[in-house]
Amino acid sequence: MRKGELTHQAILQRAVRLASRVGLEGLSIGGLAEDLGLSKSGLFAHFESKAVLQVETLEEASRIFTEHVVRPALARPRGEPRLRAAFENWLHWGKAAALEGGCLFMAASAELDDREGPARERLVQSERDWMDALATIVRTCVSEGHFRADTDPEQVAHDLYGIALAYHHAARLMRDPRAEERASRAFEALLAAHRRAAA
Amino acid sequence: MRKGELTHQAILQRAVRLASRVGLEGLSIGGLAEDLGLSKSGLFAHFESKAVLQVETLEEASRIFTEHVVRPALARPRGEPRLRAAFENWLHWGKAAALEGGCLFMAASAELDDREGPARERLVQSERDWMDALATIVRTCVSEGHFRADTDPEQVAHDLYGIALAYHHAARLMRDPRAEERASRAFEALLAAHRRAAA
Repeated sequence: MRKGELTHQAILQRAVRLASRVGLEGLSIGGLAEDLGLSKSGLFAHFESKAVLQVETLEEASRIFTEHVVRPALARPRGEPRLRAAFENWLHWGKAAALEGGCLFMAASAELDDREGPARERLVQSERDWMDALATIVRTCVSEGHFRADTDPEQVAHDLYGIALAYHHAARLMRDPRAEERASRAFEALLAAHRRAAA
Repeated sequence: MRKGELTHQAILQRAVRLASRVGLEGLSIGGLAEDLGLSKSGLFAHFESKAVLQVETLEEASRIFTEHVVRPALARPRGEPRLRAAFENWLHWGKAAALEGGCLFMAASAELDDREGPARERLVQSERDWMDALATIVRTCVSEGHFRADTDPEQVAHDLYGIALAYHHAARLMRDPRAEERASRAFEALLAAHRRAAA
């Protein structure tokens, strides 16, 4: 990797962190320059517009998400162990990646749902990819015989989204000390509802 | 009601609508004045600061929420019919109240979770009140014999939050045409998990 590329990625890592606090709309080339102690014109050489900065920040966040959530889950055995790892990594990746503002995607979802443009499109693509990955993992729960054959993988992926969103809401907005326990109970109930009865 | 009070409430109704689109942080006295075709100084006579405007906008949103969601649900029979009405009204109150940006509270939750101040405090209070109201309705499902005695009403309220948040995410960000169907299936599964076996 050339020096220029390394710097670009280091800037993006900082942008992900900043965006987790101030939101993707709150992210600006000027604000990021201040955060980094760089000149605004120097940053314009990296990102020609706020839209480009937002899209690249989302791409970097996806890369971090894959590293902290997807990859370690895929290293686990197919079926329930993999689903469990995916879910637990998902809840905690904000902390693992030292994002003060928690999951960047959940914050961005509420911000961008009324907007059009490249940042929204990039976010929707990331969310679809993750929803598809979850459904694929649920399919391994069926093929390994852990879940019943009539399980609807897309519905389970959707239900997992709800549990993760409720956790985020309880932990961050409500500062509920039982947020983790609530999420865990909801997750176990979802698994129990789909688990194959012991033969 | 005096003329001045009526105007104040009419302004707040417009503020709720505007905030549902641009967010509570995006709401400003200047922006609201422009939206209303009023002078900024005229609006300052109503709201001395952005924080006051935000808090009063949340209070007006709570009033609208009570009118569209809570009151009609409480008019239904205790137990499952009441819970069902509460859930359905909740999903659709944004549309019923003509809020283009959907549920103001869900949008505000992601916006304010990293901030401190009176708007956040007001939002947390509204969210707690609604969570308590949901738990109370779940308790009527137990006392009417619809739900099992070992049902944890706070957990069910938390789980309902997840279903509503996932619906909001699927419908608004993902524009998933099956969002409503997904929410309905998740709701029925939650009810089925807590329903008392027929005697």
